[in-house]
Amino acid sequence: MKLKVRDIDISSGGPLVAVMNHEDAAMLDLHVMDRIKIKKGHKIETVVVDLAQSNKVVPKGRLGVFEEVIHSLKLKSNDKVDISIARKPLSIEFIKKKLDGQKLTKEEIDQIVWDIVHNKLSSVELTYFVAACYTNVMTTEETILLTKAMVRHGDVLKLNKYPVVDKHSIGGIPGNRTTLVIVPVIAAAGYFMPKTSSRSITSPAGTADTMEVLADVAFPIKKMKEIVLKTKGCIVWGGSLNLAPADDKIIAVERPLEIDAESQLLASIMAKKHSVSSTHILIDVPIGKDAKVKNLHEALRLKNEFGKIGKKLRKKIKVLITDGTQPIGNGIGPALEARDVLWLLKRDPRRPIDLEKKCLMMCANVFNMVGLKDGYKKALQILNSGKAYSKMVEIIKAQNGKEIAAEDIRIGRYHHDALSTKSGRVSDIDNIAISRIARIAGAPRDKGAGIYLYKHVNDKVKRGEKLFTIYSESKHEFEYAKDVAKNSKVFVIK
Amino acid sequence: MKLKVRDIDISSGGPLVAVMNHEDAAMLDLHVMDRIKIKKGHKIETVVVDLAQSNKVVPKGRLGVFEEVIHSLKLKSNDKVDISIARKPLSIEFIKKKLDGQKLTKEEIDQIVWDIVHNKLSSVELTYFVAACYTNVMTTEETILLTKAMVRHGDVLKLNKYPVVDKHSIGGIPGNRTTLVIVPVIAAAGYFMPKTSSRSITSPAGTADTMEVLADVAFPIKKMKEIVLKTKGCIVWGGSLNLAPADDKIIAVERPLEIDAESQLLASIMAKKHSVSSTHILIDVPIGKDAKVKNLHEALRLKNEFGKIGKKLRKKIKVLITDGTQPIGNGIGPALEARDVLWLLKRDPRRPIDLEKKCLMMCANVFNMVGLKDGYKKALQILNSGKAYSKMVEIIKAQNGKEIAAEDIRIGRYHHDALSTKSGRVSDIDNIAISRIARIAGAPRDKGAGIYLYKHVNDKVKRGEKLFTIYSESKHEFEYAKDVAKNSKVFVIK
Repeated sequence: MKLKVRDIDISSGGPLVAVMNHEDAAMLDLHVMDRIKIKKGHKIETVVVDLAQSNKVVPKGRLGVFEEVIHSLKLKSNDKVDISIARKPLSIEFIKKKLDGQKLTKEEIDQIVWDIVHNKLSSVELTYFVAACYTNVMTTEETILLTKAMVRHGDVLKLNKYPVVDKHSIGGIPGNRTTLVIVPVIAAAGYFMPKTSSRSITSPAGTADTMEVLADVAFPIKKMKEIVLKTKGCIVWGGSLNLAPADDKIIAVERPLEIDAESQLLASIMAKKHSVSSTHILIDVPIGKDAKVKNLHEALRLKNEFGKIGKKLRKKIKVLITDGTQPIGNGIGPALEARDVLWLLKRDPRRPIDLEKKCLMMCANVFNMVGLKDGYKKALQILNSGKAYSKMVEIIKAQNGKEIAAEDIRIGRYHHDALSTKSGRVSDIDNIAISRIARIAGAPRDKGAGIYLYKHVNDKVKRGEKLFTIYSESKHEFEYAKDVAKNSKVFVIK
Repeated sequence: MKLKVRDIDISSGGPLVAVMNHEDAAMLDLHVMDRIKIKKGHKIETVVVDLAQSNKVVPKGRLGVFEEVIHSLKLKSNDKVDISIARKPLSIEFIKKKLDGQKLTKEEIDQIVWDIVHNKLSSVELTYFVAACYTNVMTTEETILLTKAMVRHGDVLKLNKYPVVDKHSIGGIPGNRTTLVIVPVIAAAGYFMPKTSSRSITSPAGTADTMEVLADVAFPIKKMKEIVLKTKGCIVWGGSLNLAPADDKIIAVERPLEIDAESQLLASIMAKKHSVSSTHILIDVPIGKDAKVKNLHEALRLKNEFGKIGKKLRKKIKVLITDGTQPIGNGIGPALEARDVLWLLKRDPRRPIDLEKKCLMMCANVFNMVGLKDGYKKALQILNSGKAYSKMVEIIKAQNGKEIAAEDIRIGRYHHDALSTKSGRVSDIDNIAISRIARIAGAPRDKGAGIYLYKHVNDKVKRGEKLFTIYSESKHEFEYAKDVAKNSKVFVIK
């Protein structure tokens, strides 16, 4: 069947989708979610079918194509294409197999990942895969195969150096911006640390959002390599690279239910690390009722799994189980967190001590992994000597940024202090409320928006003393955030 | 945020979806698959967000709406609507609970079904529900709650009669058009049988497709009631009614993986029966390697579950386990099957004996359930006396059809006889190949297309004797079907 292309200018967010008029579809006995082959010249692409019920956008004889198909086949409106019925991708059968509780082979996992990367699966099909791995947890062996397949079907940063250090914090804790301290300390000590970080999805800031206050974070892989070879360290946005791209597509369908299949969490982290040639990896697993990992039991199981996978991939892995019950650092939101980091690196008295202690402890573990003794002392020396700060400036400049004083970082112009209504001791801080208020205030979209904390758990507080300040760059959002803060129990004081 | 409506004229196939320009979405911190409330006048609808990456179809300030939203809010292009952020539907949490292997309560199942019926769930979210019920099989109690919720959130045919007979065949067997014989026999015996049937999804014909050769099948529920009160029986298309509508939406996301969660299969069948006030239900479970139910073990488990659910719903249920290894009847495809049925009812020597025997046995079981003795004899009497045929004509007329002789049913004009290449005995018929060839020939879209079988398993056959004829209404499809038949092993002769 010959059809004329119409660019309908909508992105499916991944899957290759085309819209046929219902009459044309009936001719080929096609239903919603069936597959067709689109042929244009020598190029062929298999896509999922959606149906148009009337003639307004996709009349008979037309093929409406989503953006992903336009790019894949380099189509223009009014191009003539040839349509034929296509089979389902091979991986559908393997997804069903996993859903039935069976173990997948190397070839099957590889085919699934290939189909995910090449947008061959509809979001419904991909969801079945995620649900299957969530309920029928993958074996360690399967997780390793998934990790390797994710790396294979993506770009790789080849450094040919040893050791190459990396770290990962499992999320859910406001603040906790350790990467921006650890990378300059480790790089200043002479070790390579090609760090990729994510942007926020549901939190007030991701590491990439915070680094973006100080420098660019989106680079092609070639440029990332240049930066790392020059400065030993970098802090770039993983999303701008094509490292283990299957992972991002999986995360997209995990979002609606906020689920995190353990095997996918493991494969996701290890694939990103493997893709940048890391050899020594420190994993931070914060435990807390609002954190991703809720209890010690879960944390120990993860630690055990990481150990097994690390061994198979011949990587040195150390898992640290840390306190995830309250925010770490004082600033929550990109600019406020970046200011904390600069104060910390510059040894300013206003620096957050809890964040500093955690970073030093993590650096000590990294030094220990690469065979250095007295790691904590060494890390503290590097910080106190100003070498970590100089290294951070070097990295910022390599990433197209300029040296900036912490005080010159722009913070939201609207601000409101929340005061304690009684005297006592802070017994709990609601992480979820903190994140919610910071996001409503505009973080991470408005870099200057967020919350600055004056008190942490166990601190004494007097009636009328400041607990936190809300910052915002928009009057409307500011009012709303204040309102939500007023109606939430952010601090519990006893 | 105020936006102007643009009708993008695409149907999502169910979920309420609207497309925002990526810049507008960023203002509200919205991601793909988040929710917004659309307010127009006093009407409010919550929908799922999709994003447009450029300005061609959905520029800044515009809201592209899928057909389902147009209908729900009665929108027109250029209507101004008010957009705000909405929460996820309540049922998301319950779906996650089921995915985590927990049991759902009445209220939770009810909320999920309500959200499904009202198109509040995206296809990804609905898929998680189906996957959850597939891997964490529902308890009998949950299945009953699901059945009741499906009935509650849909229309119901209230007859206030007793008994009301119904039947259901679990699919996968070509031919097997028992309904068109059983309904007139039972109705002629004076019992109510308000039968709803489905159209084909992946088979060459559904009962509704075959009945449509003889009469109309799409009626509103009020008209269905009139027909049943007048003639005692009917054979209408369930899809035109709003009986347990959640079921059809669930089936739509089951299709891509061709899975059939047992609890959903049970709830689906029982909900449709419950919706038409049936009190006595006969279930036919054919077993065969190509049938939906593969072995006796599975069949017995289903039988046991049906028993438990029937008891709780206070319905008399009988499950028959039957032979599903080969096609039943000779015609495969709407017109060929309708012709078989008329021959059978008219006692024509060309009637298919295997179909007749199965129908008589099923009628006998129905009579037995309602307390009649000598059911087989009684059913045969009704057939032989011509009463079943007269009743069928009565039903056909009530459904806007006309009496027609079997010979006058239009069969595809292109036909090809497949001959046996050797003498021997038929040891196997490939159901899947039969279905595939009939569909390629044009069934069920072209009513006259399909296959007519001359031989069944165990029949003797001579070299050069006719095995089957392929019928088609289109030259192109005819050639293709012939080709596929030539390259398939449809009959095994030993």
